[in-house]
Amino acid sequence: MADPPKRPALRKRYDDRQREVLDACARVFAERGYHGTSIDDLIAATGLARGGLYHYIGSKSEALFRILDDLMGPLLERATAAVEGPDAPPSAVGRLRALTRVWMRQVESHRDHVAVFEQERRTLEAEPVWERVRGDRRAFEVLLVRILEQGVRDGELAVADPQLAALALLGMVNHTALWFVPGGRLDADEVADGFVDLLLDGVRRG
Amino acid sequence: MADPPKRPALRKRYDDRQREVLDACARVFAERGYHGTSIDDLIAATGLARGGLYHYIGSKSEALFRILDDLMGPLLERATAAVEGPDAPPSAVGRLRALTRVWMRQVESHRDHVAVFEQERRTLEAEPVWERVRGDRRAFEVLLVRILEQGVRDGELAVADPQLAALALLGMVNHTALWFVPGGRLDADEVADGFVDLLLDGVRRG
Repeated sequence: MADPPKRPALRKRYDDRQREVLDACARVFAERGYHGTSIDDLIAATGLARGGLYHYIGSKSEALFRILDDLMGPLLERATAAVEGPDAPPSAVGRLRALTRVWMRQVESHRDHVAVFEQERRTLEAEPVWERVRGDRRAFEVLLVRILEQGVRDGELAVADPQLAALALLGMVNHTALWFVPGGRLDADEVADGFVDLLLDGVRRG
Repeated sequence: MADPPKRPALRKRYDDRQREVLDACARVFAERGYHGTSIDDLIAATGLARGGLYHYIGSKSEALFRILDDLMGPLLERATAAVEGPDAPPSAVGRLRALTRVWMRQVESHRDHVAVFEQERRTLEAEPVWERVRGDRRAFEVLLVRILEQGVRDGELAVADPQLAALALLGMVNHTALWFVPGGRLDADEVADGFVDLLLDGVRRG
């Protein structure tokens, strides 16, 4: 990958174009799988020549890294701000809602990225180069488990198995990458709130 | 794919071997994606020669069809028996538990198959040849939504949005293909029961 331009106006244009190129790559990876995608597939999807593709993404594996890093980095940053920043809700219930809304919005804007993340999970777990993405994934899960455990300590929640409850919510939200359609019956916040309501209160008639 | 042998003893041996071959194919598809898997990858994974591979699975796309059909066909059959058969529990809560146990056991024995199913979802939705697998998937979702709706009618459950609740449970259970390890801290029934408890009663302290 070439060094990006240094002048601000050029740099902005480069960054915008790079994002478009990475989004196109994410779409192809989500459809054909990372291993099933050739450089020619990426050339066709981005409309770039080979040299242009190299200019913006470097290799196929660099593109995968950027896609997952663009998904997990901002998600972790926003989620941490939402649940541990100065404006974080004081209650565990409020923090759970805030976290899930941030997360569903990230899925909404990055459905292909999430699909790729789920598909390539085994690759991520096996290769040393993925430590940063793995670290972000673990940190996000820790954030979620911590809210549940704090809620138990504060007497707000009763969670038999916080790890399993966290995995349940991870399954619900990440799985939306397969069915959520922006502009559909429910928007991202409604899905997030609906999931949190289910996790908080369940469906058994009281 | 050649016609399988007709004599029962030979037929049994053929079926067992075919199952092993399909399991190996599912493992490779789960790791490399369907598009990322070549016939040579399948030859390496199964230890068969090209002719042997053809004998047991026919083409790569026939192997994919068999893998998803072997996942969804028995799942739908067992789930229907568990919730609508003569021994089905009378309550919606009981049927939800029975369905989720059957389903988690199928995930446990078919983790690679589920991973492939989730990965190739877009392919499944697009191609006419997948109508049978799509039909089974829809029928399974209908089974689940019907339990929830019946529970509401019987006054057992209070479900704001049965469709979203069904999608929540689908996410929880199917996502286990990415993390569930047989012999780990929780067995398949414990995961199933834990998810159903979460969905029924939630984690808010009453």
